[in-house]
Amino acid sequence: KKILVIPGDGIGQEVTTWGQKVLTAVAANYHHQFTFEEGIMGHVAIEATGDPLPEETLQKARNSDAILFGAIGHAKYDNDPTLKVRPEQGLLKIRKELGLYANLRPIKLFDELLEASSIKPEILRGADILFFRELTGDVYFGEKKRTEDRNTASDLMIYHRYEVERIARKAYEAARTRRKKLCSVDKANVLEASRLWREVMQEIAKEYPDVETEHMFIDNAAMQLIKDPKRFDVVVTGNLFGDILTDEASQIAGSMGMLASASVGDKVGFYEPIHGSAHDIAGKGIANPLASILSAALMLDISFGLKTESQRVIKAVEATLRQGYRTMDIANKHTENEFIMGTDAMG
Amino acid sequence: KKILVIPGDGIGQEVTTWGQKVLTAVAANYHHQFTFEEGIMGHVAIEATGDPLPEETLQKARNSDAILFGAIGHAKYDNDPTLKVRPEQGLLKIRKELGLYANLRPIKLFDELLEASSIKPEILRGADILFFRELTGDVYFGEKKRTEDRNTASDLMIYHRYEVERIARKAYEAARTRRKKLCSVDKANVLEASRLWREVMQEIAKEYPDVETEHMFIDNAAMQLIKDPKRFDVVVTGNLFGDILTDEASQIAGSMGMLASASVGDKVGFYEPIHGSAHDIAGKGIANPLASILSAALMLDISFGLKTESQRVIKAVEATLRQGYRTMDIANKHTENEFIMGTDAMG
Ligand SMILES: CC(C)[C@H](C(=O)O)[C@@H](O)C(=O)O
Ligand SMILES: CC(C)[C@H](C(=O)O)[C@@H](O)C(=O)O
Repeated sequence: KKILVIPGDGIGQEVTTWGQKVLTAVAANYHHQFTFEEGIMGHVAIEATGDPLPEETLQKARNSDAILFGAIGHAKYDNDPTLKVRPEQGLLKIRKELGLYANLRPIKLFDELLEASSIKPEILRGADILFFRELTGDVYFGEKKRTEDRNTASDLMIYHRYEVERIARKAYEAARTRRKKLCSVDKANVLEASRLWREVMQEIAKEYPDVETEHMFIDNAAMQLIKDPKRFDVVVTGNLFGDILTDEASQIAGSMGMLASASVGDKVGFYEPIHGSAHDIAGKGIANPLASILSAALMLDISFGLKTESQRVIKAVEATLRQGYRTMDIANKHTENEFIMGTDAMG
Repeated sequence: KKILVIPGDGIGQEVTTWGQKVLTAVAANYHHQFTFEEGIMGHVAIEATGDPLPEETLQKARNSDAILFGAIGHAKYDNDPTLKVRPEQGLLKIRKELGLYANLRPIKLFDELLEASSIKPEILRGADILFFRELTGDVYFGEKKRTEDRNTASDLMIYHRYEVERIARKAYEAARTRRKKLCSVDKANVLEASRLWREVMQEIAKEYPDVETEHMFIDNAAMQLIKDPKRFDVVVTGNLFGDILTDEASQIAGSMGMLASASVGDKVGFYEPIHGSAHDIAGKGIANPLASILSAALMLDISFGLKTESQRVIKAVEATLRQGYRTMDIANKHTENEFIMGTDAMG
C-alpha cells in the first residue's frame, strides 16, 4: 500500500509523525507492506513554492492508496483577510480534486476521559455519534465575489441533488450497521439550499424504512448536541453546518485532540485530525498525537479493510489512557493519578 | 407607550401572555401608561389571511413604541419544504422592514440554575456573555434560487460594509460598558463575506483601543463556547453564525426557556424569547414563561429606559427560582426541594 503523508502546518508536523509511526509498527507486526511518501500543502507549501497545493503533491495524492494529513493554516493569513493566496485553498482543492465528498467524523468518548470534558459525565456516558459531513459542496465551493470598491462580498451557498443523494446514501448505509437512527441537519425554514437538502433526504429515507429518520434545524442541533448527545446516532449535514457541529462535538470526546476523521469518495481515502494547526502550541511538543494516531486507525479500517489492526491501535490508545498518560488538553485538573506528557512521550 | 403584542405560533401564545402581564403589573406599580394592541404573524396569520405578515400587523408595528413577540413556525411547513408561503417569512420580513439589524442576546446563568445545565457548574459559574447577532443581512436575505428542474438550489451569503460597521459599533459600545472584551466570529479562512467582515472589524477596532478584540473562526467558537464560556464578554457575529451560537449558548443559561432577546435598529424595538414555537409542548401549559418575561424586562430597559423597573422584573424572576419553582425544562432531576409548575403557575 502506498501512503502519502502530508504533515501540513503548525502542530500538523509533530502529530503526523506519530500517525505514521503507528502505521509503520502495524506493518511490522502484521507483516504488511506500507510504503510512505511525503508531500507538502498549506502555508509550508506557499513558502516553498508559492502554491498551497503544488501539482507535485496532487500527483502523489492521485497515485497513493491513502493519505495521512496533519493540519492547515497560519496566523499570518488569519490576520490579513486581504491576502489572495491562502493555505486553506490547498485543503479545499485536494478535497475537490480527489472527489472526497463524504467526511466521516466519529465522536466517541474513551471511558478514561469521562472527566476531561466541560460537560457532565452522566450526560456524556455512552454517547457515540458518527457524523457525515458533506465535503465538496455548499458555501465552501460556490462562487465567491468581491465588488470592485471592495465594499460588498458574497459566497454562494449551493447544493445539487446528486450531491445530497450520494452523502445521504453513505450515511444511511452506516446507520444500518449501527443503532439505525439518522438525523439530518439543515436550516430549511430559511434556506432554499436546505429545502432541497430536506426534500432529497425525505426521498432517500424511503429507501431505508428500517432506519428512523429525524430532521433538525442547525440551531436546534447545536443545542441538542450539548444538552443530550446520546440522542444522536448518525448525523448527516452539509459542509458548513458539519464544520461547526463537529468542532462543537469535540467537547463530547473530551478534547479536539482526540478526534480523527476520514474523507472518502471516488477512490483515495484521506485521513486527518479534526483539530487545526494550533500555532500557539506548535513546536512545543505538547500537542496531543492521538487524533493523528486514531486517523491512522481509520485508514487501516476504511481504506485497507484491516479491522483487526485498526482495533489494535484503538486498544493501544485506550491502554495508554488507562495508565493515566495525558497531554495537557485532556488532563483533568481534579485527579491525582495522571501523568502529563509531551507529544512524543504520549505517542 | 404603545406596545404591540404578537404572540405568533405554538407556545408563543401561552408565554407571551405572561410577558404582557408583567408589563401591566409594572405599569400599575410604577404609574406608567402602557397601551397594548395585538397583531398576528406566522402560521396563525397564514391561516387567517394567507399572509405570514399581514399589512395590518406591519402598520401596527410601525406605529408602536415596542413590540413583544412570542415564537414562529409550524411542523406542517417543516415537513413540506416545497411549500411557498412559510411562517418564518413573517419574522424575516418584519426584521427587515423595521430595520432591526442588531439582535442582542444576553446569556447569563441565574445562580439558582447552576445545576440545570448539561455543562459542569464550575465551567458555568460567572459566565456572562452578550451576543450581538447581525439580523438583516447574510445568507438569510441574499437572493434565493431554484433551477427549473428543481435539482439545484442556492442562497447568496452576502454582506455590505455598512452592515458590518453599524453592528460592530453597537457591539463595541456595549463592550465599553462591560468587561471591555469583544470577540468577532467569522469563517474568514474560507468565506469572502467573512473576509470583508474581518477587514471591517479590524478597522472599527482601531476606534476602540480600550476594548480588547479577538477574532475567532465559527467552528472554534462553537467549541470554545462549551469548553470555556467565561472567556467571552461581548460576541459579535453574522446572522447565520449568530443563530447557531446563541441556540448553543442556551445550555450556558440552563435552558432555552430562559433566554430573552432584543432586536434594535432604526426606531422600534422588538423583544422575543430565543426559543421557537415548540409545537410538541404547545397548549399543554408547561412551557417556561421566563424568556418572555425577561424579554419584557429588556423592553423596559432598552426601549423605555426604565432601568429600575427592568431590574425589578429580573429580581422577581430570581426570587421565584430561589423559592424552588421550576418548569420542566429547568428542573434538576437530582434535587428534592423543587416544585415543578405549569406555565401559568410559574408566571
Ligand atoms: C481549515 C478549514 C478550511 C477546514 C474546514 O473548514 O473545512 C477545517 O476547519 C476542517 O474542519 O477541516
Ligand atoms: C425561526 C427562525 C427564522 C429564526 C432565525 O433563524 O432567525 C429563529 O431561529 C431565531 O433565532 O430567531
